[in-house]
Order: sequence, then C-alpha cells, then structure tokens
Amino acid sequence: MCSQVLINPFRKGCVIFSKSLARRPLANSSWIRTLPHGTQSSNNHDFHDKSGYENSKRLMITGFGAITLAGLYYYFKKNIPTVWAHESKENEVNTVAREPGSFVEGLPVYSSDDVAKHCNESTGVWISYKSGVYDITPFIKIHPGGNKILLGAGGSVEPFWSLYAIHQQPGTLALMEKYRIGNLTKGEEHLAMANMHDPYANEPRRHPVLVVKTKKPFNAETPSSLLVESFITPTDIFYVRHHFPVPDVDLSSGNYSLEVIGLDEKHSLNLNLDQLKTAYAPHSVTAALQCSGNRRSEMNRVKPTKGLEWGQGAIGNAVWKGARLRDVLLAAGIKDSDENENWHVQFDGLDADPTNAPYAISIPLTKAMDPRGDVILAYEMNGEPLTRDHGFPLRVVVPGTTGARWVKWLTRIEVSKNESESHWQQCDYKSFNPSTDWDKVDFSTAPAIQEMPVTSVVCEPHDGEKVKLKKDKLNLRGFAWSGGGRGIVRVDVSIDLGKTWHVAELLDPVKLSKQWAWTRWQANLPVQTTGQETEIWVRAVDSSYNTQPEGMEHLWNMRGVLAVAYHKIKVLVEEN
Amino acid sequence: MCSQVLINPFRKGCVIFSKSLARRPLANSSWIRTLPHGTQSSNNHDFHDKSGYENSKRLMITGFGAITLAGLYYYFKKNIPTVWAHESKENEVNTVAREPGSFVEGLPVYSSDDVAKHCNESTGVWISYKSGVYDITPFIKIHPGGNKILLGAGGSVEPFWSLYAIHQQPGTLALMEKYRIGNLTKGEEHLAMANMHDPYANEPRRHPVLVVKTKKPFNAETPSSLLVESFITPTDIFYVRHHFPVPDVDLSSGNYSLEVIGLDEKHSLNLNLDQLKTAYAPHSVTAALQCSGNRRSEMNRVKPTKGLEWGQGAIGNAVWKGARLRDVLLAAGIKDSDENENWHVQFDGLDADPTNAPYAISIPLTKAMDPRGDVILAYEMNGEPLTRDHGFPLRVVVPGTTGARWVKWLTRIEVSKNESESHWQQCDYKSFNPSTDWDKVDFSTAPAIQEMPVTSVVCEPHDGEKVKLKKDKLNLRGFAWSGGGRGIVRVDVSIDLGKTWHVAELLDPVKLSKQWAWTRWQANLPVQTTGQETEIWVRAVDSSYNTQPEGMEHLWNMRGVLAVAYHKIKVLVEEN
Repeated sequence: MCSQVLINPFRKGCVIFSKSLARRPLANSSWIRTLPHGTQSSNNHDFHDKSGYENSKRLMITGFGAITLAGLYYYFKKNIPTVWAHESKENEVNTVAREPGSFVEGLPVYSSDDVAKHCNESTGVWISYKSGVYDITPFIKIHPGGNKILLGAGGSVEPFWSLYAIHQQPGTLALMEKYRIGNLTKGEEHLAMANMHDPYANEPRRHPVLVVKTKKPFNAETPSSLLVESFITPTDIFYVRHHFPVPDVDLSSGNYSLEVIGLDEKHSLNLNLDQLKTAYAPHSVTAALQCSGNRRSEMNRVKPTKGLEWGQGAIGNAVWKGARLRDVLLAAGIKDSDENENWHVQFDGLDADPTNAPYAISIPLTKAMDPRGDVILAYEMNGEPLTRDHGFPLRVVVPGTTGARWVKWLTRIEVSKNESESHWQQCDYKSFNPSTDWDKVDFSTAPAIQEMPVTSVVCEPHDGEKVKLKKDKLNLRGFAWSGGGRGIVRVDVSIDLGKTWHVAELLDPVKLSKQWAWTRWQANLPVQTTGQETEIWVRAVDSSYNTQPEGMEHLWNMRGVLAVAYHKIKVLVEEN
Repeated sequence: MCSQVLINPFRKGCVIFSKSLARRPLANSSWIRTLPHGTQSSNNHDFHDKSGYENSKRLMITGFGAITLAGLYYYFKKNIPTVWAHESKENEVNTVAREPGSFVEGLPVYSSDDVAKHCNESTGVWISYKSGVYDITPFIKIHPGGNKILLGAGGSVEPFWSLYAIHQQPGTLALMEKYRIGNLTKGEEHLAMANMHDPYANEPRRHPVLVVKTKKPFNAETPSSLLVESFITPTDIFYVRHHFPVPDVDLSSGNYSLEVIGLDEKHSLNLNLDQLKTAYAPHSVTAALQCSGNRRSEMNRVKPTKGLEWGQGAIGNAVWKGARLRDVLLAAGIKDSDENENWHVQFDGLDADPTNAPYAISIPLTKAMDPRGDVILAYEMNGEPLTRDHGFPLRVVVPGTTGARWVKWLTRIEVSKNESESHWQQCDYKSFNPSTDWDKVDFSTAPAIQEMPVTSVVCEPHDGEKVKLKKDKLNLRGFAWSGGGRGIVRVDVSIDLGKTWHVAELLDPVKLSKQWAWTRWQANLPVQTTGQETEIWVRAVDSSYNTQPEGMEHLWNMRGVLAVAYHKIKVLVEEN
C-alpha cells in the first residue's frame, strides 16, 4: 500500500546513511524526530545516531519501525477530506473551536513517556502537539483501508510539521483537536522542538514577483501575464515546485557526484559534474516544464481537491543544456533492445523526506533511450548554471512529460525492471475519475502521469479584468502546450460560448513532433457590445488532433491534476 | 489549390502510362471520358489512346487540360453544402423537382459539340447529364475561391459519375437541375456511356453482414455488436473503405512489383512479392485500423458534414504480417539521421481516379524509420494472404495512425523532403474548427491527420435498444482505442449524465506504449428503476491521460472527421 511504500526506510535505494544522503539538508539529527517505541523495544532510538544501521536492523525486528510520523502526515493529508465528509454525514465528530494544542483545564495529564507507550493498534495510537495529547485511533477505524495505512505513533507531530508547514492549516488542527484526550506534562510541551533548527533556514532568495503558494516547502508560480511576454521564461520568475527544503550543494567540497547503476555493477558509473560535462557531448533542448497540478484552482471550483492552489502559472519554457541521458546509459551498458523495452530509469534527488527517503521517480527506459526523446541531464538553464531552486547542480529534463519526472539535485540513476517504488511514483501524480475518492482509491490501478495532455490558457486579459477594446477589438494572448512532443496545430477562441470559434495566430514556430516547447498565441476579436461581461473560451489542438474537454466537471479528480479543460474566463468590456 | 492538385495529371509520380498504372482497373479507355475541348484545341482527344504521352504534352500546351470532370466532381462535392446554405439564405436558387436529366419540353436543343464549346470562363462552362444541358458558370461566381477551383467543362458528367456513384444523390442532382438550360440533341444522350463497361464489374464478393454505405466505390462497416465479439476482427467482416474500384492483381502474370525510390536512383529497389518476403524478415503487428470518419453519423446530428455516414463500425483489429518498412528503407539507402527528420515517405496504391492519379498519401519518415514504430508492408492479415478488399497483394500498415495512411494495393514508395502532393494528403483527412466551412477553408493551414485521438464506443446495447437487466444490472460492452501507440488506461461509464462514473473492466491486455491494438471493455451497472429511458455515456483515457471531449458540438468539422466525443446512447430498460 502507498503509505507503507512511502515510509519504509528499508526500501531499495534508500540506504539511510549513504554518502549522498548524508549531504541532504534533512540529514540533521537535531530536527529529525526520535523514533516511536516499538512494542518489543521500549527504548528511544535516535533514527540518525551513529549506530543507525543497527537501529535499522532492530526496526526490522520490531516490525513497527516502519511506522513514523511521515506516515501520519500522509495519513492526515490523504484522509482529512474524507474524514470531514464522513463526519459531517454522520454528525458524530465536529471540530473544536479552541486554539489547537493549548492547555485545556480538567483534562488528564500525560508525560511524553505515556504518549510513547501508545504506538500501535493494541495500545491505541497517541500523538502530542504543543500541550495537547490526542488519541487518533478512531482514524484507523474510519478508514476503509484500515491499519494497512500508516498509524503514527507515540510522539509529537511538531518536528514533522515544521517541515511540512503547509499541513498546519486550521481545518487539520481543528479536526485533530476533536481527538484530544489530555494535556502533556508541563515543561515537556517545548521539548519536541528544543534544539531544532529550521530546515528552511537556508533557502535561496526568490524574485518578489513570484506568486507564493507555500513558503515551506517553497512553491510559487509565475503571474500569467508575464508568461506570455517571452518565448523563453526568465529563470528568476520561472515557477518553483518543491517537496522539501532546497539542498545546498557545494561543488568545491568534492562531495557531489552522480551515481549511475547501469546494467550491472561492472557498468556502474560515478561522475562528478566536470566529468559529466567533458565525457558527454552537450545537448540543448528548448522545452516547457509544467506541473501536473497547473490550473488546479479551476478544478477546485467544481469541488475541492487536494494539492497546491495553482493558478495558470505552474508552467514555463526554458532552454536546457546537458548530457544526453541516452549517452550516459549507453556508457553504463544499456543497449537498444526489445528485451528491455518495458524497463524503467529511476532518479533520486538530494531532497528527502524525514525518513531520508529521497524524492524519487522513474520514467520508461524507452523514453530515456529514444534518440529523438531528448532526455538530458541538465546543468544549464537559459544559458546559466542551474540555480538552486531549479536543481543545481544537475536535474533531469524529460521533455514532453510532467514536471514530477524532472528530478532536481539529481544524485542517482538506476535502470531497473520495475518502476520506482517511491510514494511519488506509486501514490501521487496519478489521476482517477470524479467518482473515485480517497476512501476508494487504489493507486495501483492508474499509471503514473508521464506525457501530459494538451492544454491552453488565456493569459491576457485575466479573469475578472476590466478591459478596453483596441480598434473595436478585444486583444487576447496566451499559451498552449501538449505533452509527448506533439506540436500545437490550432488554438481556437470563442467569445460567444462556443457558437463561433476564431482561429488564433500562433506566435512561435511549431513542429509536429519533438515540439517540446510551448506555443504562444494571440487573437484580436471583434466585440459588438460594450459595458457587459464577456466570457472567453480557449482550447488547443495538438498534432495528434487531441483537443481539450469542455469543462472541468468530468475531469475532476481528487488530486486535482490534469486540469486541462477549456480555459474559461470572464472580463468586463468597458466603453471606450 | 486543392482541386488543381487533385486533377493535375502531370504531377510527379503520376506518369499516366507507366507500367504499374497500366495495370490499374481504371486504365481502360472504354469508360474514361473524352477530354474536354481546350480553347486552343478543338479536337477530341481520347485521354487514354495510344498517343497518350503526346496528348499529355498537348494538354500542357493548351493550359486547360488539367481541368477535367474529376475536378468538377470535387467542386460539386466540396461546394454543394455551401451552395445550399447560400441559396436558402438568399432565396435566389431553389432546387427543381423533376427527374434529373429528363427531357424538358420547350427548352433549346444543343448538340454535344455545342456543349463542348463551353469549357471555360470566357465561353461559360456547360455540362450535360442524360438529356440535360446545364450552364454551371454561376457556381464559379458563388464560390469565393472563384476560378482557382476547377471549372468542369464541355461534356457529360455521366462517365465520371459512374465511377463516383456516391455522388448521384438526389440533392446534388436536383440542385444541378436548377442550372438547366437545354436538352441534348436526341440520340446523343446515351453516347457518353456507350461502349463503357462498369468499372465496378469486377468487385470481390463481400460478407452479407457488412453494413453497406456505398456500393460504388464499396464502403461498408462492421455491425458494432459483432465488433466486441473477439479481440481480432475476422477479415470477412472487417470494415472496407475504398475510394475507387478494387484493383485485381494477378501475381502469376509477373506484372506486379513494388518500386522503392530511396535516397537516389542508385539505391532504388524494384521488388516482386516473393523478393519482399524472402529478403526482409517477417514481422507481425496486432493493430487496430480506423477510418478518420468513424462515428461521423453522430457528428451529423449536430449539423450535416460531408462524407460517408459511418456508424461506429469503421474500425477493426487485426494481426498484420509483412516486412518492416524500416528494413526496406535502410536497403534503399535511407539512414537514421537528424538531417532527414522532417522528410516523408510517400505511398501510391494501384487504385486511381479517372485522371489515373493514384490514391497516394505520405507519412513522416521518422514514423517509418522508428525501430519501435512497427510500420510494415503487410502481405498477410489474420494469418492469410491479404484479400483484395484489404489490399492484395500488399498494403502499408502504419499502426497508431488513421486508415487513410494504410495504402492498399501498394505499388510505389518514395522518400521525399515534402509530403505527398495528392488530394488525399493535402485536401482531405484534415480537421478544422466548427466555424470553418467549405467557403472559408484553407487546407494548407491544417496538418494531415496521422495519429488519431482517443475514442470509445458502447457496442452493446445499441442506441435505442430495449434491454433487460441481468441480476438487476445493465450489461455494457464496447471498445476503446487511441492513436500513437497510447494504451487505454481507463474506460469510464455513466448512466446518470456524468454524475457518477463507473470504471469499466478492460478485457484485453494493455501496454502503455506501442499499444496499437484496441481494448475491449465491459461494465455491469446497477440500475434502480426500470421502464424508462436511460442514457449511457462512455469515455476513455489513454496513457498520456488524453481523454475525450464531452460533446460533438465543438468538435464538429465540415469533413466530419475525428468524431471522438463521448459516445452517448439511449436505451429503454424494460421490466424483467
């Protein structure tokens, strides 16, 4: 199941104390929470102390070590909408209107040791937050997936949530308060966070024009009116989508290297950046990068989904330069062959979750090996070395696919018969139909999003804007893009709810295949009447004659990805 | 312009008296109409007499020889809907309710020589049909494209229409009657067809279950309830889509060969079928073949389009076996190279129009050369030699693309820097937005349809059927398919207008790429109430997460291609 995959520190490729992982910003024992007590092991174990490997073995013996608050986080993240729905239906559980985690007179007092004893189903699952102690065991019963889903256990959620600041939303905290059973012993309420530094203390500076969605981790989009200003999106205002704090790689330390696990150990490579640059011919690719969740805010108008509230700016177009992954894999012994046509290439970033599981995903080997696939290991973006926010020193560029595949701070490549087992590959970046909710979902039934479907956006004017006509015409500008290298062959615009369609002018050159870049468009439409609201629709057609569905309603999915319906905005056309 | 492209007998690759063309069933002087008189040449020239090459030269000199009734046919075919709209708007021209071509008392009498003198704009453009003489000059003025479009001239349309029997529809004939100016001299009304044999006299026998759309040329589809019976569609009931009479190749005559124009003349090949079979390793591909116009009848409910009235059965799934085109092209000197990545491969069939221009199209060279593209020159279908209706002895199989690319009775391959100049490549099998009509269209603005978008169909029950529940459930079966090798990853079915979506069971194995075959599906849906009409919706999602638009309205295009909206049918659920 997905949460187990997520939190299993024994997963292949996630040797916790490896050299590369030791350089991750998360590998800091001061803020990684102490392990929950196992039922057979009542001692506290620092997950990251010197005897980490022994701890790992012990955890395997106890059989409970795989359950950490990372899992609890995902449990909450995944289930809160469900639980809300569930509760409101049955009128059993309401939220509690008090400051979450505050001391509540009259409740029993428990020590952190008491809390730590409740870390599995037989004992009940307790957690603490500031001064509050909570028994979240009922969550297990509510959830149809039952105890297969991670049950967090026996400690404070604060160290974890300091990483996932996004999670500290009022709804989550108020719901948690419903499960309040007591107060933490006075004096212990700050212990969990004592001696911890902020993992986000060393973030890079960002351009103030970026529209910030979350600060920790940092996620921000480009204002859409700036998107259409240039074919190439300037790096400083390019959207940023992080899952964790930004790694800070110091090349001069000599610690950075790229590990490539090829056909077998004999063929494996270990390259520093200079070696990669000199051993493999540089190759440049102009390609758009788009988050699977771009335009989620439009989908949320149908019904809330779970994810960052992206407008239309989680996309950008850049020139990327690096070594062809194909060349590197050939050097690692991989061959063009029918035998490996169902294999995969896994990528690990230096960014990682609190269990030190790196951000990791995979792509089909056929895409990596395709001489026309243009997959590169990029060290430059728009003519400059990558910035930290865009993966310095090295990121994968997988043209035509969703941004989730373009792993930043790349440190490890492995060719394998199976997809990555990571949470990000298995249990995120997938889509389902509108009738599939978090209760029912079986992530294994859907493929990971790789190539993306065709989309288009009106960038100017923006939704709700008051606009003036120019020579009795309404000027529109925007972009369109499709995955898989499929070029945009037509953009249609309508200002009468689809009764009449106008063909927009394409501003950028288009190829029918290997068209990784986006295509900007403009249209000047005659408007008969002013002083009233006008609804604008845009849709694009790609070189396979795919086009966009009309509305978000039937595209809706719980994760809010692939929001690629017609872009519809309303503007007020003013008298001139 | 398109009609010129179509009818220009001097086009490259269409040497009228070449050996291969001489074997075309159309190359029969007895039914090919005599040439219209050119303005500088008042003599009749049999287009196919022994001095054909000299005639060709003469036609080039007259400058009018390129204008034939083939063009007139396409002019009519293309413009009739426009003209109808135009007329009805302006109330200027109405159709005439008499037997088309019948003798009309009181009209002037003209000889065929008189008619022949009216063959260009300065003289007016006359045609004859049975006993009728018509001045169709006004057509030229109505049409915005004006005289760039072919203006037919100076003779009977009957020989031509005997080939295009589809054209003899009441609307066309009644409209033509409006342009009636006279009667043909008695005794001449049968001359045009005298001594002509039926070019369709030698058609193969067909399975009676096929649903015939037109007999001449033969076009017929598979009943959709039979489609889902088996993963492989039996050859006998596989849909048939012809443009012309079916060539009849006698391999024992030694006349058949495949000409391959490669990098240059030195590398060109000329292969008979045995040579092709022995020189190149056989390769089998299971792939669905679908007409671009499949499901056009659903689009016609929005507004009539121009084309065969296909239901949902212009698709089938078969095992094809033949030589890899890649191997043949490598032998012809073509290399894997970035230099030729925008080149094309042209295919000519043995079937041809009355000017002897073969059915010809092209595909991108990258598709042909892609080691994973699976393009083959097939000599077997479902384990047997190709039947005549499916291209005996050789057809191209271009998996993942529209049927128009799968040239039958293949006789010539040419690698070229440009696409095929044929009518079929340039002016057909393209799509436009719903506001583009035959008046406005510029075919050069749209790419030829190659890969097709995702589609799905409910085959059982059929639209309008009365159905009984099985164990309180409604049983549905159908198929889904997408172009470009994109596998079907999900089929959603709704019986409440999209409020609830059920995931259908996929009956056939699916790959995420190189999935050329279709995927059948079934669903058993709970139905609460009986005795009332239930609307069923189906839509599919492919491995690039493309899905189908909701309705045909905004997909509508004048040619009626790519009708890939949700399939929506209504059934009456009866009391058990």
